[in-house]
Amino acid sequence: GAGADNDLYINQAVVFIEDAIQYRSINHRVDSKSLWLYRWYYSRTCQWILSLTITVILALAFIEEPSSLTITSDVRYRLPAWNPPCGLTESIELLCFLVFVVDVSVKSYLIGWKEFWKNKWLMAYILTLIVSLTDWIVSLSFFCKESVRVRRILRPFFLLQNSSMMKKTLKSINSTLPEMASVVLLLAVHLSLFTMFAMLLFARTKDNQQDKEWVVYFRNLPESLTSLLVLLTTANNPDVMIPAYSKNRAYSVFFILFTVLGNLFLMNLLTAIIYNQFRGYLLKSVQSSLFRRRLGIRAAFEVLSSLKETPASAQQSCVSVGALLQVLQKAEMDSRCKQAIMRSLKMCSCDQLSAAQFQKLFEELDKDAIKQHPPSPEYQSHFMQKVQFAFGHPYFGYLGNVVALANIISICVVLVMDADKQPSERDDFFLGAINCFFILYYLLEMLLKILAMGFKRYLSYPSNRFDGLLTVILLILEIATFAVYGFPHPGWRPEFMGLLSLWDMVRLVNMLIVFRFLRIIPNMKFMALVVTTLLDLVKNLRAFAGILVVVFYAFAITGIMLFKGAIVPLGNTSAANTTHDNGTVQCGTYEQLEYWPNNFDDFAEKNVISWCSAHFQAEVIYYLLYVLSVHLICRWAKIYFVAWWLISSVIWVNLFVALLLENFIHKWDRRCQRESLSDIEYQRTVELMFRDVLEEPTEEELMEKLHQHPHLQLCR
Amino acid sequence: GAGADNDLYINQAVVFIEDAIQYRSINHRVDSKSLWLYRWYYSRTCQWILSLTITVILALAFIEEPSSLTITSDVRYRLPAWNPPCGLTESIELLCFLVFVVDVSVKSYLIGWKEFWKNKWLMAYILTLIVSLTDWIVSLSFFCKESVRVRRILRPFFLLQNSSMMKKTLKSINSTLPEMASVVLLLAVHLSLFTMFAMLLFARTKDNQQDKEWVVYFRNLPESLTSLLVLLTTANNPDVMIPAYSKNRAYSVFFILFTVLGNLFLMNLLTAIIYNQFRGYLLKSVQSSLFRRRLGIRAAFEVLSSLKETPASAQQSCVSVGALLQVLQKAEMDSRCKQAIMRSLKMCSCDQLSAAQFQKLFEELDKDAIKQHPPSPEYQSHFMQKVQFAFGHPYFGYLGNVVALANIISICVVLVMDADKQPSERDDFFLGAINCFFILYYLLEMLLKILAMGFKRYLSYPSNRFDGLLTVILLILEIATFAVYGFPHPGWRPEFMGLLSLWDMVRLVNMLIVFRFLRIIPNMKFMALVVTTLLDLVKNLRAFAGILVVVFYAFAITGIMLFKGAIVPLGNTSAANTTHDNGTVQCGTYEQLEYWPNNFDDFAEKNVISWCSAHFQAEVIYYLLYVLSVHLICRWAKIYFVAWWLISSVIWVNLFVALLLENFIHKWDRRCQRESLSDIEYQRTVELMFRDVLEEPTEEELMEKLHQHPHLQLCR
Repeated sequence: GAGADNDLYINQAVVFIEDAIQYRSINHRVDSKSLWLYRWYYSRTCQWILSLTITVILALAFIEEPSSLTITSDVRYRLPAWNPPCGLTESIELLCFLVFVVDVSVKSYLIGWKEFWKNKWLMAYILTLIVSLTDWIVSLSFFCKESVRVRRILRPFFLLQNSSMMKKTLKSINSTLPEMASVVLLLAVHLSLFTMFAMLLFARTKDNQQDKEWVVYFRNLPESLTSLLVLLTTANNPDVMIPAYSKNRAYSVFFILFTVLGNLFLMNLLTAIIYNQFRGYLLKSVQSSLFRRRLGIRAAFEVLSSLKETPASAQQSCVSVGALLQVLQKAEMDSRCKQAIMRSLKMCSCDQLSAAQFQKLFEELDKDAIKQHPPSPEYQSHFMQKVQFAFGHPYFGYLGNVVALANIISICVVLVMDADKQPSERDDFFLGAINCFFILYYLLEMLLKILAMGFKRYLSYPSNRFDGLLTVILLILEIATFAVYGFPHPGWRPEFMGLLSLWDMVRLVNMLIVFRFLRIIPNMKFMALVVTTLLDLVKNLRAFAGILVVVFYAFAITGIMLFKGAIVPLGNTSAANTTHDNGTVQCGTYEQLEYWPNNFDDFAEKNVISWCSAHFQAEVIYYLLYVLSVHLICRWAKIYFVAWWLISSVIWVNLFVALLLENFIHKWDRRCQRESLSDIEYQRTVELMFRDVLEEPTEEELMEKLHQHPHLQLCR
Repeated sequence: GAGADNDLYINQAVVFIEDAIQYRSINHRVDSKSLWLYRWYYSRTCQWILSLTITVILALAFIEEPSSLTITSDVRYRLPAWNPPCGLTESIELLCFLVFVVDVSVKSYLIGWKEFWKNKWLMAYILTLIVSLTDWIVSLSFFCKESVRVRRILRPFFLLQNSSMMKKTLKSINSTLPEMASVVLLLAVHLSLFTMFAMLLFARTKDNQQDKEWVVYFRNLPESLTSLLVLLTTANNPDVMIPAYSKNRAYSVFFILFTVLGNLFLMNLLTAIIYNQFRGYLLKSVQSSLFRRRLGIRAAFEVLSSLKETPASAQQSCVSVGALLQVLQKAEMDSRCKQAIMRSLKMCSCDQLSAAQFQKLFEELDKDAIKQHPPSPEYQSHFMQKVQFAFGHPYFGYLGNVVALANIISICVVLVMDADKQPSERDDFFLGAINCFFILYYLLEMLLKILAMGFKRYLSYPSNRFDGLLTVILLILEIATFAVYGFPHPGWRPEFMGLLSLWDMVRLVNMLIVFRFLRIIPNMKFMALVVTTLLDLVKNLRAFAGILVVVFYAFAITGIMLFKGAIVPLGNTSAANTTHDNGTVQCGTYEQLEYWPNNFDDFAEKNVISWCSAHFQAEVIYYLLYVLSVHLICRWAKIYFVAWWLISSVIWVNLFVALLLENFIHKWDRRCQRESLSDIEYQRTVELMFRDVLEEPTEEELMEKLHQHPHLQLCR
């Protein structure tokens, strides 16, 4: 009937509006039941459950065998870690898989079968699930004793497929690959030509004293390649040059040429290429989000305009205000926006809305929320008004900064004086006394500010919240200290009592004070700009960070599978002894440098190694290579580490630089405009940053897209 | 008289045209004698003498005491270097100073006294000369025994003041300084806060086994600062983290946080700021060059239009073609341009030229020289024509590349096979034989190409010149080898004869073959693009490189003065013994790592050190610091090295990245256009790269500037 039809149209409009708000695609089924399922699937609870499941399955790596539940990762000291019994992590895994199965079925149903066959991500999702479940069954049938677990490497895929931003970013990275591959090829040519040159230049001579360079770095082809590759990461510069340079100054020309060409030119060329490719990336992604929003709103308009109550005689399609109000009441959206739209709907006296008016109403969604601080309390007493003026004045805040600086300096002085004292000689009285004084001042400052501004207004400033929270924590710590150890007095050096020693308490207080000093940031203009840029960047970087997590995870799991147990403490095995048959520990080896904690025996460990090596640092690589070559898996390890270095350090760092440049330059160009508006605090989003360069989609584009909708049949 | 006036005007026009060609300012004296002096001063000979003088005075550092004239710079092995007798370098220096005195007087005279007082560079030039001469007198009166020579630090100024590009670049860098200073301040705050945190975190504990971190890296404030500063350069990552990480995994959070904030964010922020500042730099400088050119031509037009022969009745000022021809004959310019202008002058039938026509004539100067290759010879014989077709075809070139690749691979195979052989076991027959074969092929290829293309056409391609030259050198080397050692046969291992041993000859030949392999570059599209970008970059970077040389020079000389003799070979002095009183060499110290060649005892040495440390490498700094701290000049050394790291590594590398990004992105955007023109080889200049974005200066701007000329009085 018409009533049921109308209900369906209203529901469709509600879902389309919600799609527009969340920048979702509108290409899903639109019948009543599917709409209910769709709203249920995208409800907060469901999405939260899905995110939790992904987190749980990724976090499993930390507790699975080999678990990371030891304090140290040093193979020499650590106790055998607690490993969960067989079946515990597996049953959690099964639960997660079941959630994913539900997820993939709902998703596939909602987009419809026709679309499903075009969607490669969904197919891959199903494939991954099938492989994981098979592997799970194999695992259980071996009672968890099997060594290779394919499903652990596949896990990050679940994170990847759940985020549309990450999928988009991956596509972008993918399109840059051909050019990156060219530069990498160029690097490879550069490396191989220089390797041949080096082998010819630093050949073995008859005088054994003279060819140190040959012995250490250019003994054979793989070793020469490795030496120069490590030089490309600058990790063994200038070590690799020294023996040759010591022989003749002219040899330095070779190394300088190699570094200039490789590091300065080719590496930076990679940055340039990636930056060039990503220059428009943010803009393009914001543009497509805008298109999705406009499309959703337009779709809502179209379905509402086909409601039966509309006068059929009207030339132009239009929507009645009543229907829109109904939709608004049903739709889930920010209450501020909802109220603003209602208000403008009431102000507009007309009964019918055209498409343009309809779009205009929803422009409220794109607007910044202007944050208004609650007013200060109004005191009657003249004295109180004066107090309010004095302590509400910015100068009082500056005084607070000066006091915080004084506190920092006093801590610094004490640290310098105590630097060489034995712990038993240390007198905690002085530090205790000054900290006590400063914390009292901080408390007073907080109370006076609350008095002057009122509690609500005080809390509405983020800097005050930061300040207040730290002051309260400091106060609690200080009271606890006095409760346990009594008041400070000269020669105050009590014995260990309770949870923490006095010295630890004092250290903790001091660290918090140092941390509290960060409150000065908003007071310095340039710093504030930099910090806001960085915060923006963090928001925009979520997709990249996600992809990095995926890569880290896959590499870590692969590393564990390949190299687990490859590093054994000295003296435990005969393998280690063969390398050091002269009885002493050689300089520059893994053992001498005490890189023990760096091994591949668990997951947390591997991530930290990855981290280190990511930052232009191949030293770990180098020393690990040394040990690994002893264990005869040298070749695999080399390929593994070179791949890791290329992906994490070279490509990811360059991507990061490209995004930073993009963000920063946009922000910088906009600085002048913002300065005039600095009184009003905006809640800035990526979309707003680009507002003035975005192009509105045209009516034709929107309608064309709507007519391509696989499930929605528009009347006209 | 009118004739003398006319002569003067013609001469003025000639000079203005030459100014326009060389992009020089026209603000100089314009009377007859000054014009003569001006042309003499800017004549090739004079400018060449000036450049030579600057080179000589800068190169003096290599032969002055302490001279770099030893093969090795290793203090343990090197013999006492030859030092020039007192008075030799000093007299060369005096000659240079006299040239500079002439230079500065001519320059000052030519711009006129009024302008002189506004020109800070000239004042500084005079001041530098006065200080240098005074120092020179002091030096001679001490018979060269004085230790501090101020004039050596001042020398790079002579290089700086002679290049207008460098002065402009310096101005640009100067305007970026405030923002760079902000980031450096931010870095300093970051560093100091984290240092305090680290000192609190890694405090001394009662258990001596447990506080390795404290002992090695965070013993006191200066040491903690140094540790974290070195971590910022990533040179001691992950070493600095290992002891703490070995104790507890959680400590890695501190180091990761420090590195992410410092290295990834703040350091790249610096890149972003510098890139942002330099984005328009190239364009702006090209724009101002264009303005100078147009101004020079306009000035020439104005002076020519006031010639007496012009009909006074004409409303618009104009220039007679005859006068212009006279000017063109006198002016020194590229003969191709001159002929092109003459040609279009003849084609234009009019007798008088307006300002616009005049400008248009000289647009020939901005145009690319289209390089035309001489035609191939035309052979009568049918057979020869077939031969010409076959060997002139690109496929023949590709075949040559394949053969070169085969040669490289064969060398590679021999190298791998011979890698572990003793020099006495090595058989040079195989390598000798294949090299002989390949060199014969190269010779044949060259001859056939010359036959097909004709000698002139062959030489007109740069790749052929490169190829041919290397082939000829290889041939000469091969013939020399056979002449000295006879033809290769199995077991060919002759004794050492002549200048080089057979093995050295073979190595040299192989290196040249590897080098010759670079001929493949133009055949690969992307590689060709990258290489042309890099070549362009090198052109644009001259000013930056000059400034880098200035900074290098100043730092090197300062380093020599401060730290000369600070590093002494082990066992030579008691100072070295005090640090190693346990009798053995400690791991990780300067001695163990054999950094002997890195010291400050001469100039070439210092430049190499600077080079190493410039590239994100603070290891040298670190170990030098270790030794220097022993010598009690620790503080100065630290400040010196931190300054050096900031200037060379941080700022200069970022400048370089900024320029590379700028250049590359321009080039990349233009790639599509160029592909269509790829048949014609252009001689590209920076100016041409920006042609389509440059703005032509307006008539009003030009005339306003002309009326501000301090010496030229225009009639109207």
